[in-house]
Amino acid sequence: MKFRIQKSDYIIGRRTAFLNIYDAEALGVKENSRIIVDFGNYNSIFFVSLSKNQVNRSEVIITADFSNEINDEFVNIMPAPPLKSVDSIKRKIYGKKLLQDDFESIIKDINDENLSQIELSSYVTSLQTVGLDDDEIIYLINSMVSHGEKINFEYEVYDVHSIGGVPGNKYALITVPILASLGLKVPKTSSKAITSAAGTADVMEVLANVNLKAEEIKKIVDNVGATLTWGGSINIAPADDKIIKVEQPLGIDPIPQLISSVLSKKVATSIRYLLIDIPMGNETKVQDEQSARSLAEKFIRIGNRIGLKIECAITYGGQPLGRAIGPAIEAQEALRALEGKQTSNSFIVKSLEIAALMLEISGISERGEGIEIARDTLRNGKAREKFFEIVNAQGSKGIEKSEDIQLGEFTYDILSGFDGYISYLSNRSLVEIARILGAPHIKEAGLWVYKKIGDKVEKNEPVLRLYSKNKEKLEQAVRLSRKIKLYSIEGMVIENIPDIKRSKRIWEVKE
Amino acid sequence: MKFRIQKSDYIIGRRTAFLNIYDAEALGVKENSRIIVDFGNYNSIFFVSLSKNQVNRSEVIITADFSNEINDEFVNIMPAPPLKSVDSIKRKIYGKKLLQDDFESIIKDINDENLSQIELSSYVTSLQTVGLDDDEIIYLINSMVSHGEKINFEYEVYDVHSIGGVPGNKYALITVPILASLGLKVPKTSSKAITSAAGTADVMEVLANVNLKAEEIKKIVDNVGATLTWGGSINIAPADDKIIKVEQPLGIDPIPQLISSVLSKKVATSIRYLLIDIPMGNETKVQDEQSARSLAEKFIRIGNRIGLKIECAITYGGQPLGRAIGPAIEAQEALRALEGKQTSNSFIVKSLEIAALMLEISGISERGEGIEIARDTLRNGKAREKFFEIVNAQGSKGIEKSEDIQLGEFTYDILSGFDGYISYLSNRSLVEIARILGAPHIKEAGLWVYKKIGDKVEKNEPVLRLYSKNKEKLEQAVRLSRKIKLYSIEGMVIENIPDIKRSKRIWEVKE
Repeated sequence: MKFRIQKSDYIIGRRTAFLNIYDAEALGVKENSRIIVDFGNYNSIFFVSLSKNQVNRSEVIITADFSNEINDEFVNIMPAPPLKSVDSIKRKIYGKKLLQDDFESIIKDINDENLSQIELSSYVTSLQTVGLDDDEIIYLINSMVSHGEKINFEYEVYDVHSIGGVPGNKYALITVPILASLGLKVPKTSSKAITSAAGTADVMEVLANVNLKAEEIKKIVDNVGATLTWGGSINIAPADDKIIKVEQPLGIDPIPQLISSVLSKKVATSIRYLLIDIPMGNETKVQDEQSARSLAEKFIRIGNRIGLKIECAITYGGQPLGRAIGPAIEAQEALRALEGKQTSNSFIVKSLEIAALMLEISGISERGEGIEIARDTLRNGKAREKFFEIVNAQGSKGIEKSEDIQLGEFTYDILSGFDGYISYLSNRSLVEIARILGAPHIKEAGLWVYKKIGDKVEKNEPVLRLYSKNKEKLEQAVRLSRKIKLYSIEGMVIENIPDIKRSKRIWEVKE
Repeated sequence: MKFRIQKSDYIIGRRTAFLNIYDAEALGVKENSRIIVDFGNYNSIFFVSLSKNQVNRSEVIITADFSNEINDEFVNIMPAPPLKSVDSIKRKIYGKKLLQDDFESIIKDINDENLSQIELSSYVTSLQTVGLDDDEIIYLINSMVSHGEKINFEYEVYDVHSIGGVPGNKYALITVPILASLGLKVPKTSSKAITSAAGTADVMEVLANVNLKAEEIKKIVDNVGATLTWGGSINIAPADDKIIKVEQPLGIDPIPQLISSVLSKKVATSIRYLLIDIPMGNETKVQDEQSARSLAEKFIRIGNRIGLKIECAITYGGQPLGRAIGPAIEAQEALRALEGKQTSNSFIVKSLEIAALMLEISGISERGEGIEIARDTLRNGKAREKFFEIVNAQGSKGIEKSEDIQLGEFTYDILSGFDGYISYLSNRSLVEIARILGAPHIKEAGLWVYKKIGDKVEKNEPVLRLYSKNKEKLEQAVRLSRKIKLYSIEGMVIENIPDIKRSKRIWEVKE
């Protein structure tokens, strides 16, 4: 059927075509039906919404989040035939094993936004409840890589990656320059925070431009040895972002999707050696050692099969890493560490250990000796020097030392009500407070953890300091801090809880 | 925040509030976020869509599928707090057992349309992939019943119910009047076709009004003994329809949802004795005897625990029941059977067997003797008489005998290309053809199966006749019939395939 076309700027979360209710009946389609809109030179799938009076007969209004140019005043509309990908999703729901073809059609349709929210949600849910085996994860990785941009290097490249879940996890700002100053090539891309207070890219953005194109990344890695950029500025594995939009409201992060999301991006950026940090703790993604080991072994097994040499470090994630949470304050803590100033031991130790593992994997140091080399490189200022080479190559924001960083001018100290020892800090609640303060969008918002688990605290001593650019947000955060459990204090230390457990290395898979 | 309110008649499949993109940012909400719109006297949840230019700042446009009256010109809008039901769904995804409270909140939020399509789809998918145990199904039934209308009877009432999947399954038009003329009270409600060619309610609607309210059903059952109405006209277990809207595009029908959908409606209409027909066959919902038995046992076990006495008949569903598919032609076939005229044996046998089982359950006849009583009641015209009492009580459409029924005037015979025997008839393809012809909405559309499985056919003899009210639809169906496999013919009968296997009775659960 032929329709006169109009555009609307409504953003509804899918390509929507508004039809008159009688035209829809004549076409044999209903609300949410998939239709093909034929623009002459090309077709596109839209989802039907209806109206009796606001859309005239023989008229269609399409949403403008559909960005293609429209030349013609008229379009042809017909019901869309069933999608192969929907059949594949259904077979997964019924517990069947999917093949490369299935993932090709699923990822293509996710990329093209041809799936309804019902279908996409069902797919993501089945990834959690039915799961994928190793073969299927590899098919999924292949498809995610093939439907996105790639960066090729003429030499071997290295990467470190954390699966996340721990606030303050800014170690890459230390680890990457250590590795690069020792000659490793590290084109590190990071994410911005979705549910956390600051992603590595948010922290780095306080100091440098992080929106780099593939060619720019390649050039900087050629010249300087490393980048610390935002993965979202290159179009690698674009299906991932569309899947995250469904995972987030459900609050799930299925393991097969987590693995293929990480590895497809590494394959697309030609990474050859990869160290994966798996933080383990009550309020992280991995809650016990068995799950952490099983995830690590899965990463390694699959990596082996697709030509990626992977090692995993299971790290302690039971409290924030370091003491800073929020983009600017984390950047400040990282700079202090690079400058050799007094800072949190857990943060330094983790940054060095991850660097050490990578140095050992790459053969730059013998097994067991990486930590000394990494520590020297931090102490002798070479890491700091390399870090600013990276910052300048990406485009500096003008900050040259930790004291230059501005934090929110409105502050509030949360004081202890008792004498005792900190026995618990809630990752989740600390993040919630930081987000209420405005992190990650307001860079200056954040908090400082004066007292960490095992620390002695006296009545009226500060446990946390909140930073805000804005009085209302500070008051809101203070009100929330009275309602939720941020930490626990016990009268005496039952057991000496170390600040960080030694990372566990997993480099062999026992089957 | 305060907004001036406007209404739109857009039907988007959820309560939608269009906000200006900057207002949304100020509120801290995004597209698809859940918000509370406070109308003064009451609140309602809406989902956010955005616009830069088509919605002014401090203005909100809400969709009119939200039918409540709006008195005030201004409303207050705030982000909605997390729903408990979403947390319950998440726990089901992670394999946890849910409790009564969880289902209360899930069913309440489904009824109130507070869940997004992402959340609802994830719930339905997890019902299939994770499943529910007996306790959970009972909790679900309780919640579905408590959030809907109920009909109470002062006497014991009986019902027969088919889980569906077989075309032409119109036996209730014979079975129900047989039971009622023998004194059983049968307030039967049926569904209209969603994906099939004709539901029992579509067939009955050819002859009588089927849109009856609860009080009318009660009155007719009091006076005449039975009804054959459309379940959708009373508000029992209303969550069911909203769940079907998600099951349908996914093409799934999870067992726990199937069971609770059937049983919640029976509990809501005070049914005490229930016979469930489980058609079994390649292209039905239940494909093998083991699945059929396991489903039957589950129905019986759960029925026992909620005070419903259930028996199940596993029936042959490998081909259509009878020879007619489509509302008017099925009504005609049913009337012919009631009139004692020559008609399909499989259809008569199934109608009588189901009646017989119910007569035995109710104690009207001894075990094994129901079939004779049922056959007599059909033969002596009492069933026909009772059927027209029901038709007249509901409101007759004026048809008094099978010859009065009009079928589509455009017909087409599909002829056999060979001599041989019919070895296969595709339920799915026959339904597809009937729907292209216009069934169930066009009552006169449908088809007649001349040759069933095991029948001898000669070259150029008709296998199927298509009926249409409209030449284009007939041509479309004929074109489709050439592309899809409707039946198979083999040169000789390998094995004598009986027209119907004797129904299997299951009335004891062995654990």
